[in-house]
Amino acid sequence: MTTITTYDITTADGTRFSPHAWRTTMALAHKGLSHDCHKIGFTDIPGICDGARKIVPTVQFGDDVLSESWAIALHLEETVPEGPSLFGGEKGKAHALFLNNWAAFSLHPLVIRIILLDIYNRLQDKDREYFRTSREKRFNMSLEDFAAGGEAAKGQLKSVLTPMTKTLETQQWLGGRVPSYADYIVFGAFQWVRTTSTFDLASYGGEPVQAWLDATLDLYDGLGRNEPAAS
Amino acid sequence: MTTITTYDITTADGTRFSPHAWRTTMALAHKGLSHDCHKIGFTDIPGICDGARKIVPTVQFGDDVLSESWAIALHLEETVPEGPSLFGGEKGKAHALFLNNWAAFSLHPLVIRIILLDIYNRLQDKDREYFRTSREKRFNMSLEDFAAGGEAAKGQLKSVLTPMTKTLETQQWLGGRVPSYADYIVFGAFQWVRTTSTFDLASYGGEPVQAWLDATLDLYDGLGRNEPAAS
Repeated sequence: MTTITTYDITTADGTRFSPHAWRTTMALAHKGLSHDCHKIGFTDIPGICDGARKIVPTVQFGDDVLSESWAIALHLEETVPEGPSLFGGEKGKAHALFLNNWAAFSLHPLVIRIILLDIYNRLQDKDREYFRTSREKRFNMSLEDFAAGGEAAKGQLKSVLTPMTKTLETQQWLGGRVPSYADYIVFGAFQWVRTTSTFDLASYGGEPVQAWLDATLDLYDGLGRNEPAAS
Repeated sequence: MTTITTYDITTADGTRFSPHAWRTTMALAHKGLSHDCHKIGFTDIPGICDGARKIVPTVQFGDDVLSESWAIALHLEETVPEGPSLFGGEKGKAHALFLNNWAAFSLHPLVIRIILLDIYNRLQDKDREYFRTSREKRFNMSLEDFAAGGEAAKGQLKSVLTPMTKTLETQQWLGGRVPSYADYIVFGAFQWVRTTSTFDLASYGGEPVQAWLDATLDLYDGLGRNEPAAS
């Protein structure tokens, strides 16, 4: 079997917290694949693999190097057809892309306002200056000013999470009777929060979301739960 | 072949405008099924079929009577397997339920603030009092006070539509390379607006959404486009 090496960033205490990398970690487990994780910092990314990588997750499948969680999921579905399907076919994949974009453009922008300083405070020392500079440029304001929008973001969370809550009122997983990549997309956001902050994101989704999060943390011998929660 | 009769509400000039009924109308066409539509008013609903119906779409498939667009779509997918699939399997269906809930709980609540008075002004005379009373009870305020929130709703539309816009930047349909029930879910909202109001909803989604709406209106010999736009 091809050796799979993933590159993932961690906090100062070695906790994997990237929401996008968690999607990939769960997708690999879904396919029954083990991987060897190289824990790095943001500032190590230019030095990995072919030196052309800008983000995690970056995954080396034998000679192939892939970055970006969606591309990795498509690659896994195509090259590991013998494992359980992540998408359940073309329409399942197409609909999952909507969920991917909902996470990216509706959920994550609220979450980052709330946990930004928690993330910053847990970074490896070598990453702090890079993180501050790059994010302040991206947000066009100081980290502290950006995070001041956290309370307003909390006010929108329940509304943004409602489609998820309602869906989980009638089916156990976003993927239906069994988890699909859609579950891992959204789990990434919840694990991002759980590993960096004591903010209780699931409470904004109510009981169905809390039950789903518990079940998702238990998948694959507690793969998600084994990563320490922030305290 | 079983005769299919649908019950749908119309405006005073006979235009079918229900977003939920449009989902069903498109789903029937997707399956290659013709139907006979009984055009009614809100106040006629208690008198149709078995007298136990509260909403449109209500559809009579031979001896079976079904209401609620999602239940009808599931029934079609199960009982007409020979037509093109609406969902593409269990995961496609599960993921589409998220889109159904996104439309119901994220998109529609903004749209109704914007077009409520347009709808009211176009209703059949016999429906006006019922509509005002039932909606004022539901919203717990006058129609006019509710509609005063329209400008604020417009301010949130671009953000709520972004997952759709981003998805349609990389695939032609929400269903991927061909339309799926996900497209009809969302089309319902756009057709609701188009048939009752001159408000340009698609402009808030930008070019990819505008191109998708044009293409969706053209499906099945212009089934959607043949219904007159409000002027």
